Amino acid sequence: MTAEVEVRAMRTAIAASERVRGTTSPNPPVGCVILDARGEVAGVGATSPPGGPHAEVNALREAGARAEGGTAVVTLEPCAHSGRTPPCTDALQAAGVARVVHAASDPNPSASGGAEVLRSAGVDVHSGLLADEVAKGPLRAWLHFVHTGRPHVTWKYAATLDGRSAAADGTSKWISSAQSRAEVHRVRAAMDAIVAGTGTILADDAQLTARDPDGNLLDRQPLRVVIGDREIPPGARVLDDAAETLRLPGGDPAAALAELAGRGVVDVLLEGGPTLAGAFWEAGLVDRVLAYVAPALLGAGPAALGSAGVGSISQAWRLRIEETTMSGPDVRISAVPQD
Amino acid sequence: MTAEVEVRAMRTAIAASERVRGTTSPNPPVGCVILDARGEVAGVGATSPPGGPHAEVNALREAGARAEGGTAVVTLEPCAHSGRTPPCTDALQAAGVARVVHAASDPNPSASGGAEVLRSAGVDVHSGLLADEVAKGPLRAWLHFVHTGRPHVTWKYAATLDGRSAAADGTSKWISSAQSRAEVHRVRAAMDAIVAGTGTILADDAQLTARDPDGNLLDRQPLRVVIGDREIPPGARVLDDAAETLRLPGGDPAAALAELAGRGVVDVLLEGGPTLAGAFWEAGLVDRVLAYVAPALLGAGPAALGSAGVGSISQAWRLRIEETTMSGPDVRISAVPQD
Ligand SMILES: NC(=O)c1ccc[n+]([C@@H]2O[C@H](COP(=O)([O-])OP(=O)(O)OC[C@H]3O[C@@H](n4cnc5c(N)ncnc54)[C@H](OP(=O)(O)O)[C@@H]3O)[C@@H](O)[C@H]2O)c1
Ligand SMILES: NC(=O)c1ccc[n+]([C@@H]2O[C@H](COP(=O)([O-])OP(=O)(O)OC[C@H]3O[C@@H](n4cnc5c(N)ncnc54)[C@H](OP(=O)(O)O)[C@@H]3O)[C@@H](O)[C@H]2O)c1
Repeated sequence: MTAEVEVRAMRTAIAASERVRGTTSPNPPVGCVILDARGEVAGVGATSPPGGPHAEVNALREAGARAEGGTAVVTLEPCAHSGRTPPCTDALQAAGVARVVHAASDPNPSASGGAEVLRSAGVDVHSGLLADEVAKGPLRAWLHFVHTGRPHVTWKYAATLDGRSAAADGTSKWISSAQSRAEVHRVRAAMDAIVAGTGTILADDAQLTARDPDGNLLDRQPLRVVIGDREIPPGARVLDDAAETLRLPGGDPAAALAELAGRGVVDVLLEGGPTLAGAFWEAGLVDRVLAYVAPALLGAGPAALGSAGVGSISQAWRLRIEETTMSGPDVRISAVPQD
Repeated sequence: MTAEVEVRAMRTAIAASERVRGTTSPNPPVGCVILDARGEVAGVGATSPPGGPHAEVNALREAGARAEGGTAVVTLEPCAHSGRTPPCTDALQAAGVARVVHAASDPNPSASGGAEVLRSAGVDVHSGLLADEVAKGPLRAWLHFVHTGRPHVTWKYAATLDGRSAAADGTSKWISSAQSRAEVHRVRAAMDAIVAGTGTILADDAQLTARDPDGNLLDRQPLRVVIGDREIPPGARVLDDAAETLRLPGGDPAAALAELAGRGVVDVLLEGGPTLAGAFWEAGLVDRVLAYVAPALLGAGPAALGSAGVGSISQAWRLRIEETTMSGPDVRISAVPQD
């Protein structure tokens, strides 16, 4: 079996894991591919919702007897502990898998050691294949959650090239392109929770749901979270039955994240507005920026980011650009705070 | 001779023309490569300063007798008229050039017809090779000038991801990276004029020169232009002898450009500040945006662009992104107004 086959299988496993993002928390969205002894794909699986089987078990089920003497290619080190489901290391051994290739290692002390357990049982184990890609991609939020105990926060915003999120008269439909708006809805659907401040709800009657371009609800809806003390009118769209909604008064970003962590929320999309985003930055609680920069200029109007505790240039929040791509006519910038 | 050889020669001609940008106005910065009869580079030339020889003549001089039976590859259609120098079509014929390949066609009625003149004389002429690249690159400003009678205006600015050009306390050293700042100085050196408002001069004591990273003046210095009525203190750096400085009171962007056109200025770098940039936008007189977006967030402080006559989102200046590249850690965005 060539390394190339395993790399291709890992990409398939990554793609499978991407499809279950938003449905597995607090468990990680993992993908697994079983290659038979000749190196052909025999099964593909991803993590089921909490309480359901892990990716390995789903992939083994599809592979059936073809797993015997084959290879399991998985985005995360197989677990060796019994939680709500039995250890995956047992399932892999029972199926007669001869080799296991995984990307990320399990940082969770109670689950780690899967590679070691398999090796002791005579299974050939290779660790770290495409580990970086997985750690920055599908497992990013979960790894952050395990390391810090806090949900991973992505601040998403749309603004013009000159940093305005609305015109002087408050109009903002539309700053970003139809392509970018559709993409944001797909991003929302893969998140555990969408967070906004009362200001955004009161100003825009935002629904905070994931919808298709025709306005129909997508299959999965993240938890809607509204932070702030002001009352929301009973008829507000964010209170409709399209998804669950959580009200968090108090206005402390850290407390809000702790509350969400307690509810198993791992991956958060902070959608603003500028005031709440500023408060999250000031608290040092933003882990990634996803900016949709529209090729337009306004020269006036509300800024994309409100007060973030920065008075002087030396205090600026410095980031590192991860990726710049086009989203239709817009520039999509992904950036992370500098260490 | 293969087409590939001519494409390569055209790229050499483009590079030669880039090196004389800023030194040729009101003439176009043109590049020319002479290939000998076997397709080998025999001479490379670019436009000399006004009154000096055109690119073709400089390249022919280097090629000498090797031009006989060869090909002239030139970024602009050779001129057929006598201006301050004799027609290039004569020089090409006298040297015995058998073929002429040019990129852009000459839009200038008094100079055009060079291709036709050469064809009638039995020279093989091919028009349009890499024409788009040349028209968007080295000849862009000059073509704009010929078509509109106005200098081409590039608005350059540096800002954070959230569109701020300084922090709340006014500090702005440094928003953009050392790489971006060095690049801006090289961009300046290739321009005919750098324009700023009195606000920028009074606030920053800006020198508006092109310098190397150690602060030494580069060989070429564009005309410095300060627009606005307020007095500039005699000791201001913009009034030093590093370069020529033009004061333009009145504050009318169109009148300022007309004045500059009259002085042979073709390519203008508008460096701001936000007030003057807004006035140029409001007048519809910006032809290109060159934004250095630093991966930083401020959440407060002056905006990159001041009032530009936009009240509502429907009036936004809509652009088209030409190119997004990294400039060190910064994102460099080139955009043009939508037609
Ligand atoms: N371009 C974009 O991507 C985008 C995204 C979202 C919104 N927007 C725009 O933003 C505008 C609303 O702006 P906004 O700033 O008022 O909205 P916001 O940030 O959603 O809400 C601000 C409110 O959040 C509450 N809050 C909770 N925790 C806070 C804290 N730690 N610090 C400060 N406030 C806290 C406060 O309300 P209480 O008094 O109720 O506690 C505060 O007034 C709308 O016009 C919307 O269109 C743009
Ligand atoms: N980030 C960047 O890329 C960048 C670039 C340049 C400057 N800046 C910053 O910008 C700040 C200065 O801002 P600013 O807006 O005062 O500078 P500015 O735009 O350079 O100057 C504004 C002044 O220009 C004059 N003016 C000329 N024509 C005008 C017109 N048609 N409409 C309006 N005003 C006209 C007016 O002064 P009179 O009253 O004298 O006529 C006006 O007050 C500085 O702190 C500087 O650091 C940043």
